[in-house]
Amino acid sequence: MVMNRDICDLSRGELVTLKTQLDAAYAELCGRNLKLDMSRGKPAPDQLDACSGALTDPFGSFKAEDGADARNYGVLEGLPEAKRYFGELLDLDPARIIVGGNASLNLMYDMLMRLYVFGVGGNPPWRTFRKVKFLCPAPGYDRHFAITGELGFEMLTVRMTPTGPDMDEVERLVADPEVKGIWCVPLYSNPQGICYSDETVRRLGRMKCAAPDFKIFWDNAYGVHHLYEETPLYDIFKACEDGGNPARAYYFFSTSKITFPGGGVSIFATGYGEHAEIVRHLGIQTISYDKLNQLRTIRFLKDKATTKKHMEKMASFLRPKFDTVLDTLDRELAGTGLATWTKPRGGYFVAVDVLPGCAKRVVELAANAGVKLTGAGATYPLHHDPADSNLRIAPTYPSVAELAQAMELFCLSVKLAAVEKLLAK
Amino acid sequence: MVMNRDICDLSRGELVTLKTQLDAAYAELCGRNLKLDMSRGKPAPDQLDACSGALTDPFGSFKAEDGADARNYGVLEGLPEAKRYFGELLDLDPARIIVGGNASLNLMYDMLMRLYVFGVGGNPPWRTFRKVKFLCPAPGYDRHFAITGELGFEMLTVRMTPTGPDMDEVERLVADPEVKGIWCVPLYSNPQGICYSDETVRRLGRMKCAAPDFKIFWDNAYGVHHLYEETPLYDIFKACEDGGNPARAYYFFSTSKITFPGGGVSIFATGYGEHAEIVRHLGIQTISYDKLNQLRTIRFLKDKATTKKHMEKMASFLRPKFDTVLDTLDRELAGTGLATWTKPRGGYFVAVDVLPGCAKRVVELAANAGVKLTGAGATYPLHHDPADSNLRIAPTYPSVAELAQAMELFCLSVKLAAVEKLLAK
Repeated sequence: MVMNRDICDLSRGELVTLKTQLDAAYAELCGRNLKLDMSRGKPAPDQLDACSGALTDPFGSFKAEDGADARNYGVLEGLPEAKRYFGELLDLDPARIIVGGNASLNLMYDMLMRLYVFGVGGNPPWRTFRKVKFLCPAPGYDRHFAITGELGFEMLTVRMTPTGPDMDEVERLVADPEVKGIWCVPLYSNPQGICYSDETVRRLGRMKCAAPDFKIFWDNAYGVHHLYEETPLYDIFKACEDGGNPARAYYFFSTSKITFPGGGVSIFATGYGEHAEIVRHLGIQTISYDKLNQLRTIRFLKDKATTKKHMEKMASFLRPKFDTVLDTLDRELAGTGLATWTKPRGGYFVAVDVLPGCAKRVVELAANAGVKLTGAGATYPLHHDPADSNLRIAPTYPSVAELAQAMELFCLSVKLAAVEKLLAK
Repeated sequence: MVMNRDICDLSRGELVTLKTQLDAAYAELCGRNLKLDMSRGKPAPDQLDACSGALTDPFGSFKAEDGADARNYGVLEGLPEAKRYFGELLDLDPARIIVGGNASLNLMYDMLMRLYVFGVGGNPPWRTFRKVKFLCPAPGYDRHFAITGELGFEMLTVRMTPTGPDMDEVERLVADPEVKGIWCVPLYSNPQGICYSDETVRRLGRMKCAAPDFKIFWDNAYGVHHLYEETPLYDIFKACEDGGNPARAYYFFSTSKITFPGGGVSIFATGYGEHAEIVRHLGIQTISYDKLNQLRTIRFLKDKATTKKHMEKMASFLRPKFDTVLDTLDRELAGTGLATWTKPRGGYFVAVDVLPGCAKRVVELAANAGVKLTGAGATYPLHHDPADSNLRIAPTYPSVAELAQAMELFCLSVKLAAVEKLLAK
């Protein structure tokens, strides 16, 4: 088989020969009857087992430190010790923080619904505008784009660079008053693992937006999810305050990938000026989030130092998986001209760009052989990747052995899709 | 002191004498430095202690019966065993049910936001109408009215009768296409403890509504919360289906007052026709609710028979408290002409109607002596009780001894407010 030569340079005859070899290899892999799901960034069971203490440690007392009974109604903004814990962990003032339920996605959805229905800060509700546009750095997180899509916003794709979204483009776009916000995953972005530079964050904070209620949805989903060294992240609230825009950022975080995706604790932090207004709306929506889960989670994670140690353990589960992905990509695809990919230092994903027009076919080939990948296009607004090129690999759920097989199939599918494409020219 | 004579019939001189006596008694009660909160329907700590198993029983396995890992992402509609459990408990088809987070109020809010922003069943979103009106049987639950108030709906008060809302009035009002829905607490209504008759439920299901998307928000909050015998409730879905309106009802329930207000499990059931549409919206809003809490709660409550036994234990905590309230009202106010009240057979509240124009003053007098009651007017839309007469007593949180003192103060405040009023004439 032709190994790691630029396949795009092969003659037609060489391509036909290669295709025969790839078809045979693909048939062999199909025969293994794989059944793997790499479509979502789910922690693996052994990772979750390492968090069991959060569920099985005896409860001791149901009282929060201020005497509130965590079992009963009340404490809308979250237990004081939970606010303090997240404040220490993320260098946030606890006074900014609202502690929510098990899903930060739901907090983002709720905040967008509030902006749409009620507006904030004395600005008109977004439903009253003829058109609302939202900046979507892409590739990005499909569930973000699904929310702004459901609200009928026009989603403007912004190219990602190694230091975050293309800020020249962002600054140009926010001069349009219809542009009301931007989605950001600032650390180990989903799916590329890109970390925003200090300058990117500062520019987001100080840029001149025509919309007075332009909002940054700062989803720091992987804020403590380092695979190797710690990557620093510039304080978005400081950037916005220094830029004269103290109400610009909404900060989201959760323990979904620290303890349990299905039963973690989420938080939402805002500029000081809007906190009371949002809490007032929240008080109409619910009486209180699950404070027992706050107590349970915070007693397990304790403090920043304990959580860092815990996340080092989590990283020890994940590193061999990321290594398997990257080693296989290197071995099978380096030098072939068929793909480029990122080497994230944290987070939950690896992004691969294949030959234009091939991503959908790769997903199809992998699926037919028993491996479910994230749908092609999912990382773009409305599931439309204009180049049909970007693929997201979610290596966290399968075991290393399963992953090795899945990646073998993935790389083979990339080659096969490319050769099909080249032969069809 | 004048005992249980109709105080309204007293002469001015008798009233002055009585006021002197009441003032002295009030001063004595103020001297006791009470500090009690009877404002909300919160279970008492000993009641919550009796549910500890839901938190402390060892978890055994995190796997749901279909093999899903409750710790991880997924299972948007709720675990199959949770759906089956609630189906059995409430005589609902599990296929109708979505199992939510810890707050049914939040499910109601979310559904109203969906109707407002997106609409359902192909009908226009409610935000597109010049005006939306909502029927509010009153006295009712303040948090219901707060949601429809926040959305800017015009809230039309409907009188409560011993068999539910005044159905003649409801049927008259729903001929207006701007009338889009009704709040209902059909069993042991908050605050009067009224149970809807079969005929009321059937009329709600079959009445001719001008709005094609008229919705019944059926908050069966006290569906298994009997203090004495079981009160039956006619099946709202059957009533709607028999009436030719299969999508009319949204059914809400939670374990907030079965296990823990702060950490229970809520559900939402719909007509078959709308289920898939609502699940599709829900899938944009969140990945999944807390399935660990579903597992924990359902393993503790097990099945209908176990839950009935558990609720009998809960009733044994509550009956002495309701008895204290009703005995004190009987002893202090029967025959005075100053108040009428309900004698609920379940639920969490007792409603008292005092002389018109006196409710606010009663709350003030009680507060000044250290007992916090639910605000006067809270049981009416926009906190406006036109008669300033209705008061809600929430007897569940204090101990029986505390409650006896609080009720003594309550009754004294009712008398004092009345005498002040009569003397001011």
